[in-house]
Amino acid sequence: MLLYIYLIAITAEAMSGALAAGRRNMDIFGVGVIAFITALGGGTLRDVLLGNFPVSWTQHPEYIYLTVSAGLLTVVMARFMHHLHRLFLLLDAMGLVAFTIIGCNVALQLGYHTAIVLMAGMITGICGGVLRDILCQRVPVVLRHELYASVSLLVGILYLQLEQLGINHDLCLIASFAVGIILRVCAIYWHLSLPVFSYSPKQWK
Amino acid sequence: MLLYIYLIAITAEAMSGALAAGRRNMDIFGVGVIAFITALGGGTLRDVLLGNFPVSWTQHPEYIYLTVSAGLLTVVMARFMHHLHRLFLLLDAMGLVAFTIIGCNVALQLGYHTAIVLMAGMITGICGGVLRDILCQRVPVVLRHELYASVSLLVGILYLQLEQLGINHDLCLIASFAVGIILRVCAIYWHLSLPVFSYSPKQWK
Amino acid sequence: MLLYIYLIAITAEAMSGALAAGRRNMDIFGVGVIAFITALGGGTLRDVLLGNFPVSWTQHPEYIYLTVSAGLLTVVMARFMHHLHRLFLLLDAMGLVAFTIIGCNVALQLGYHTAIVLMAGMITGICGGVLRDILCQRVPVVLRHELYASVSLLVGILYLQLEQLGINHDLCLIASFAVGIILRVCAIYWHLSLPVFSYSPKQWK
Repeated sequence: MLLYIYLIAITAEAMSGALAAGRRNMDIFGVGVIAFITALGGGTLRDVLLGNFPVSWTQHPEYIYLTVSAGLLTVVMARFMHHLHRLFLLLDAMGLVAFTIIGCNVALQLGYHTAIVLMAGMITGICGGVLRDILCQRVPVVLRHELYASVSLLVGILYLQLEQLGINHDLCLIASFAVGIILRVCAIYWHLSLPVFSYSPKQWK
Repeated sequence: MLLYIYLIAITAEAMSGALAAGRRNMDIFGVGVIAFITALGGGTLRDVLLGNFPVSWTQHPEYIYLTVSAGLLTVVMARFMHHLHRLFLLLDAMGLVAFTIIGCNVALQLGYHTAIVLMAGMITGICGGVLRDILCQRVPVVLRHELYASVSLLVGILYLQLEQLGINHDLCLIASFAVGIILRVCAIYWHLSLPVFSYSPKQWK
Repeated sequence: MLLYIYLIAITAEAMSGALAAGRRNMDIFGVGVIAFITALGGGTLRDVLLGNFPVSWTQHPEYIYLTVSAGLLTVVMARFMHHLHRLFLLLDAMGLVAFTIIGCNVALQLGYHTAIVLMAGMITGICGGVLRDILCQRVPVVLRHELYASVSLLVGILYLQLEQLGINHDLCLIASFAVGIILRVCAIYWHLSLPVFSYSPKQWK
């Protein structure tokens, strides 16, 4: 089940990457590249930081085809995208939760400390979007808006807690998923966000 | 032969990095850093993503000296650079093709799948320039302009096809080189480019 | 002793990261992320490039807690920060020198060539700040201003020279530290900087 959600998630992320590339007037090659990086960049960064070689997509070329295709399809479908805004945000929320759980699992299997497992979940969940924003010259949106990275952290903590209690694996997954998506949807609906730190010194560096 | 072309290529790339650094008024240390990263960053990223340690330049300090020197030399020669514009574009095209073929070869020797071999070629070919543009705060030019990354992809495909047909290795090299450089020169001359995806939504994220 | 200085250094770097995040109006989660990356990003990049797995902070979760806490503390203390400007610059100089020496030691123990050892020192010393600036959308300040990266290089060279002469290890450390901090303080005080390369072509790429 996690695999199917993963495939939906990388597709949704690839499409969000393609739209960001379109806002920067990239050519269709650039669209494919950004789609690929948005979808698979988080997992890649996690694998490199954890020393988990080979990096997962190098063993699954089909992920490359899927994400690049999703990016190019977005170019064709772009004019209809705003009708799908809500569906899209839901897919993105699913992606965030799926990526987080997958990232936690990878680090767990490598025997890392709990804090690192949570970091691995967050890196997988949010870094694709961070790389997309760097390449498209924006201050990473996940570091500024609404509850996003924090949802990833909470899902990771919940998932680890449930697993530690020895609860059935599928139940853990479903519970973490439900809580994660509900949190994210609430965050979007009520514009929940963490306090912002604004600092404008007169003289600094 | 590939080695000599490689040395010319990293020199040309280092010089293009130095010029980009100059447009951002960096000090000469920054010029050296950007020159080094533009020339060797693509190969470094490839090695890290493929888990191919040690990274190549860590075994060849002479590449560091060469690229940093080329960057600093560019500072002195900058006022004459625009006379060399055409030579420079040609060297850059040679670099793109040489980097691509070298990148493909590295991934081939590590036994990766064909799709990953092509990715390795492209990463080696274009990522130095992408890193340069990120550090100099530009939307990466290779994702927006003319045929560049796509030339890298085509050269990779051609090279692999020729090798698979069992053609003499040197012949494969020369043919891929010739086609790659001609493609790139045509792209520059006639301003060939892929269709651009422009997306300006009213309300999105 | 180096460990204590290291802990002070990552705290100071984390605080500088938090202030940069505040200038971009990030939320407190983003502040924590930038604090962490500024403090530990240089060492992480060094470990990945040298193939030195596991990356050091994945074995020391307490470094994560320390840097994130320092970042969040900065949010509370921000209004008093400009009174501490000078103390802060001194801590930052200590950090630069400590990071450089630690980076050199890591590469030395892995048996790398001298040039790579110096590179490892510089990467550890300056790349945290470079990553901070990329994420906060600034042209990296260390590539443009005052003697900073060059102090890192000089400290590395001095440290290696002294070690090679067979001088007592603690003495090497103290001497490198003293010279590094004095150099950096002089650079700040007299606004010493390397020549800047300004290049503004009419027609280029």
